[in-house]
Amino acid sequence: MSKYTIGIDYGTLSGRVLVANVETGEEVASYVLDYPHAVMSETLPNGTKLGLDWALQHPQDYLDVLYKAVPEAVKLSGVSPDDIIGLGVDFTACTILPVKKDGTPLCFIDEYKNNPHAYVKLWKHHAAQDKANKLNEIAEERGEEWLKNYGGKISSEWAIPKVWQILDEAPEIYDAADLFIEAGDWIVWQLIGKENRSSCFAGYKCNWNKQKGFPSKDFFKALDPRLENFIDEKWSRDISPTGTKAGELTAEMANKLGLKPGIAVAVAIIDAHVFVPAAGVAEPGKLVAIMGTSTCHMLLSDEGTPVEGISGVVEDGILPGFFGYEAGQACVGDHFQWFVENCVPKAYFDEAEKLGLNIHQYLRSKAEKQKPGEHGLVALDWWNGNRSVLIDGDLSGVMLGMTLSTKPEDMYRALIEATAYGTRIIVDTFKNGGITINEFYAAGGIAKKDPMTMQIYADIINMPIKIVSSDQGGALGSAIFGAVAAGKANGGYDDVLTAAKTMGKVLDIEYRPNPENVKIYNKLFEEYKILHDYFGRGVNDVMKRLKAIKREVLSQN
Amino acid sequence: MSKYTIGIDYGTLSGRVLVANVETGEEVASYVLDYPHAVMSETLPNGTKLGLDWALQHPQDYLDVLYKAVPEAVKLSGVSPDDIIGLGVDFTACTILPVKKDGTPLCFIDEYKNNPHAYVKLWKHHAAQDKANKLNEIAEERGEEWLKNYGGKISSEWAIPKVWQILDEAPEIYDAADLFIEAGDWIVWQLIGKENRSSCFAGYKCNWNKQKGFPSKDFFKALDPRLENFIDEKWSRDISPTGTKAGELTAEMANKLGLKPGIAVAVAIIDAHVFVPAAGVAEPGKLVAIMGTSTCHMLLSDEGTPVEGISGVVEDGILPGFFGYEAGQACVGDHFQWFVENCVPKAYFDEAEKLGLNIHQYLRSKAEKQKPGEHGLVALDWWNGNRSVLIDGDLSGVMLGMTLSTKPEDMYRALIEATAYGTRIIVDTFKNGGITINEFYAAGGIAKKDPMTMQIYADIINMPIKIVSSDQGGALGSAIFGAVAAGKANGGYDDVLTAAKTMGKVLDIEYRPNPENVKIYNKLFEEYKILHDYFGRGVNDVMKRLKAIKREVLSQN
Repeated sequence: MSKYTIGIDYGTLSGRVLVANVETGEEVASYVLDYPHAVMSETLPNGTKLGLDWALQHPQDYLDVLYKAVPEAVKLSGVSPDDIIGLGVDFTACTILPVKKDGTPLCFIDEYKNNPHAYVKLWKHHAAQDKANKLNEIAEERGEEWLKNYGGKISSEWAIPKVWQILDEAPEIYDAADLFIEAGDWIVWQLIGKENRSSCFAGYKCNWNKQKGFPSKDFFKALDPRLENFIDEKWSRDISPTGTKAGELTAEMANKLGLKPGIAVAVAIIDAHVFVPAAGVAEPGKLVAIMGTSTCHMLLSDEGTPVEGISGVVEDGILPGFFGYEAGQACVGDHFQWFVENCVPKAYFDEAEKLGLNIHQYLRSKAEKQKPGEHGLVALDWWNGNRSVLIDGDLSGVMLGMTLSTKPEDMYRALIEATAYGTRIIVDTFKNGGITINEFYAAGGIAKKDPMTMQIYADIINMPIKIVSSDQGGALGSAIFGAVAAGKANGGYDDVLTAAKTMGKVLDIEYRPNPENVKIYNKLFEEYKILHDYFGRGVNDVMKRLKAIKREVLSQN
Repeated sequence: MSKYTIGIDYGTLSGRVLVANVETGEEVASYVLDYPHAVMSETLPNGTKLGLDWALQHPQDYLDVLYKAVPEAVKLSGVSPDDIIGLGVDFTACTILPVKKDGTPLCFIDEYKNNPHAYVKLWKHHAAQDKANKLNEIAEERGEEWLKNYGGKISSEWAIPKVWQILDEAPEIYDAADLFIEAGDWIVWQLIGKENRSSCFAGYKCNWNKQKGFPSKDFFKALDPRLENFIDEKWSRDISPTGTKAGELTAEMANKLGLKPGIAVAVAIIDAHVFVPAAGVAEPGKLVAIMGTSTCHMLLSDEGTPVEGISGVVEDGILPGFFGYEAGQACVGDHFQWFVENCVPKAYFDEAEKLGLNIHQYLRSKAEKQKPGEHGLVALDWWNGNRSVLIDGDLSGVMLGMTLSTKPEDMYRALIEATAYGTRIIVDTFKNGGITINEFYAAGGIAKKDPMTMQIYADIINMPIKIVSSDQGGALGSAIFGAVAAGKANGGYDDVLTAAKTMGKVLDIEYRPNPENVKIYNKLFEEYKILHDYFGRGVNDVMKRLKAIKREVLSQN
């Protein structure tokens, strides 16, 4: 009799539940629930206004995924709950919330529900950039060793800047919070009835190191005396490695989800990192890029040499036994979505409808007829700042080269190319840092559905690209971790390597660089690099000054 | 009994005929005819493909304006042809065509009608940039004195680069042409039955100087030996000053137009320059900006000191007795039109329609709620290259500062502001060159219809702006010249100063700078200037390299 596990993938806008076959990796059934509150970037549900660059979520949405999507997926699969042996969870990060000792989010409590700081700060909440700047400055001054594991700079998206923003702007929330916790760890807590913290979140988003632990109390004190005992008072030093079991499903939760109580629940992992086992990758030198609204780049290595501008290198951060490197682009699919929402004229929508295409397909049908260089444009893909290798949320987008003949498909293609140039900067930086990259794997919606974009990527990075076959986001990876948490004795696996090789997989197709295109893109990439360094490395800080003026003007309103 | 004159204004897309009262300047009636062939930038009427940056027109369209719009305007006016005493013509420039000895355009002749070079090259034909570059290089090497009267560089839009392109790419057309002539002079030829060349076209667009004539034969020979005798063989040294009579309407033409034969026809003038008398301006220090698809800046001065990057200073070029300065922005309204055609989403059009607004009005209704600096963007207004002060058709547009929250109205406003920063560069360059500017007059559609844009201009250039009241483009100025050509004895004027003061006029309203806005715009202008110099003065020639790659790629198609 086949055994099954459940993988739950919490993305930016929805939660996805997958039921997978443990022997084959077959994706038997899945169910997606869009978060009712989506991303709150302008107001709270009650109308309270949010500041510039805010991005919040509502934790009730995460529970809705458990209560609605899990039973629906199981029902669709036709699998008996008796044959479901484990469950894994992956989550966006750093996505954190303040909670009480018993795990109750502050925003569930009447007293706090009108305070924006009581809600979940989503990964793309960028309003703590000043805190990140100050933290980086202080860490550099103090010669903090751990800084070089994060490319020399930590991002405003990470835990400490976000918590520090709360302390500064809403000390009453900071005080009321017994704990701050990653949403992924919080969901595991709900499932197993006790707090459990993952090495992946701690390592990549809260400056934790397997050998050395968290930054020192002195460092936290240097940030703000009130933060001196932050880790002991409001976080935890008890960190569980990914690829292990966090605990067992409580009877109460098993009842709500329609599962068997006591089945294994895996330690949570970041939604990007879980793609590595899902791609069947369990060895060094294979870069896995997860291309969605943003892109994350995952790479296993035997060595943990620090690399400039890489978001993090964490021992056991992805798979046990390896150093896991993470790099990222803060805005990829989001560029294209922004573009179709803001820059595509009515006539294009009408024509697309007539042809039965969605607007992205229609734009691609026009853009794919072009040769590289034909549109005369180059863009900087910084609509949501730059994560790797500049680590600067205050950078913004550029489009250059427009003439009166420039068409929407030209700018659309230029945006796609810009994200590929951004990827090439990351690949080149790894290589220049002495980290081997032999193969490039792409996962996520763009990778599977958009051959034009993938060919452009292959031409620009000048490497063949393999496509990860799962349709289920990171959910397959989480199901793999669920199978490892269950263990061989229960029908699962005892080690994550075997599980990844058996359940993970890639498509047969591969995008190969076209030598003619590579030649032109090499020239265009030089232009991108000049602009990248000019605007990104302090030669002309116009983007920062424009944001400063904008903030000043808006603060007077 | 009142007397009347006719002003004919040939713009980029249409011809406008005005019947004006000579005593009061009252605009009695007008009629606009859109050119049936508009601007041909992709193909000839027969489908022959045009190259990159081409822009042609069909001379039959100009005749259609005479034959259809003149009788219609006269009919609408109710004025008796017996009371119409003169006629003036203004035209875009440099807009030139090859003709036979009798004035027949080559494109009217079967043998040549499939050859793109046989057609009119419109002012915004930019495919002779390489010729302009070479010409500027040679002129500088030779230390040509006249070069400094054109800001040190002549534009690819002007006569010699355009003719040189024909010689190079279609020597058979160059040989078949008995003459090359400005379309404005060609229309006057059609009206009076003989060739007549205007000092305005010759001075601003063909390097002619009242004191020194045209550049030397040696210079032309240095360009190309075949051009040595270009002026004597294919042009003319017989140049008539603006503000004088070119000749009298032929009987044949009077018959076709429904006018009296023998009435005075004025020497033609450029469509921008004719706004100076239309604004009632006839003295130094008053800058008149004509804001349409592009913007031209006209300024009278007692002195003719050369100024960097100013398109031209020509003695008697605008009004007799003054040095006339011309500066220009190659793309203003064209930016906004490009934007609504390419970058405004369906939902905006739907909402505009619901509110009964056109799309520009709707975008302004959103943009005008913003404070300066609020959108966080800065743009370079170079979608059609840069005329003043960089004189470089190979520059292209930039938009910088976009985030995922950027809205279409933000970019629309940023484009408007960019054109105002471009104007401020010109004003500052005049002032730094020692040329007095006391007052700023704005004419054209944008000036009269778009208070938000005019307030932004006042805030950015930090000067009050007066609005020229004519609704009739340059046609009122041409009617003023018609009245001067007719002379006092026939019911007109003997001098252009009196005519301008009597018939020209401005509105009572004036846009005054808001000191709060000025403060922020001063900061933003500094950002514009840094980018202007970085991309425009050779620090980073990315725009030229992108265009070179684009040309190379397209040439392989």
